[in-house]
Amino acid sequence: MKHAYQKAKEAYCKNEVPVGAVLVHKNKIIASDHNQMRQNVSSIDHAELLCAYVGIKILKSPYLNECDLYVTLEPCPMCAATLKHLRIRNIYFGAYDFKGGGIVHGPRLFDSNNSHTEYYGGYMENQCSTILQDFFKSKRD
Amino acid sequence: MKHAYQKAKEAYCKNEVPVGAVLVHKNKIIASDHNQMRQNVSSIDHAELLCAYVGIKILKSPYLNECDLYVTLEPCPMCAATLKHLRIRNIYFGAYDFKGGGIVHGPRLFDSNNSHTEYYGGYMENQCSTILQDFFKSKRD
Repeated sequence: MKHAYQKAKEAYCKNEVPVGAVLVHKNKIIASDHNQMRQNVSSIDHAELLCAYVGIKILKSPYLNECDLYVTLEPCPMCAATLKHLRIRNIYFGAYDFKGGGIVHGPRLFDSNNSHTEYYGGYMENQCSTILQDFFKSKRD
Repeated sequence: MKHAYQKAKEAYCKNEVPVGAVLVHKNKIIASDHNQMRQNVSSIDHAELLCAYVGIKILKSPYLNECDLYVTLEPCPMCAATLKHLRIRNIYFGAYDFKGGGIVHGPRLFDSNNSHTEYYGGYMENQCSTILQDFFKSKRD
């Protein structure tokens, strides 16, 4: 999660929404990224999706069932549903997203009997949450 | 929807799950595709996502708010959530997906007050549904 948080800090410095993610396969980081919505002119280039796309290319596999994802913010429904399709093994997230989350909030996409994924929230929650609050506060000021 | 159905037929012939989609911008088709999960070794390469990715590249826009999507099957939660992020204007779908749908089934992702999208189901429903049934029946036989 420290590595994912570093990615979020990079995003902050680039004026991107500061969310970072890291994809791990067999104890090795195979992808890491941060939100790229501004850079890529795309509303869907979230950190965890970018990592997932790289993961399936690197592993040449339709699934990420031997992978774990670390991400600084609770994934939204789009990312959560994509990670569900990819049958990712574990998701560890930092801050909870009360408005936009899709795992422990909103559609709670893994709480069904067709899920292959375990999830765990609240890792480095304070830091992961504070960097987002600071970012959006700086936008309003 | 006829064009989307043609794409589904192409998919059938290529041994891909027969779902087709067409993205329309200002009365012009700007993208059309079918599921490519087998070809691309990816569990997430659904027809509507592939069209959406092409759409944002072509339009150089983070959103598809002036676009309409025609797709032969009710989008799943992953696709529906992605289309919601992209603020697509209208979704017209063919067959209903009682088990895997995300629009009028499952999380019903557009039935919230933060949706920019209208949706309409049941276009060419019989044909769009039959081609899927035939495909999966041929797999079981």
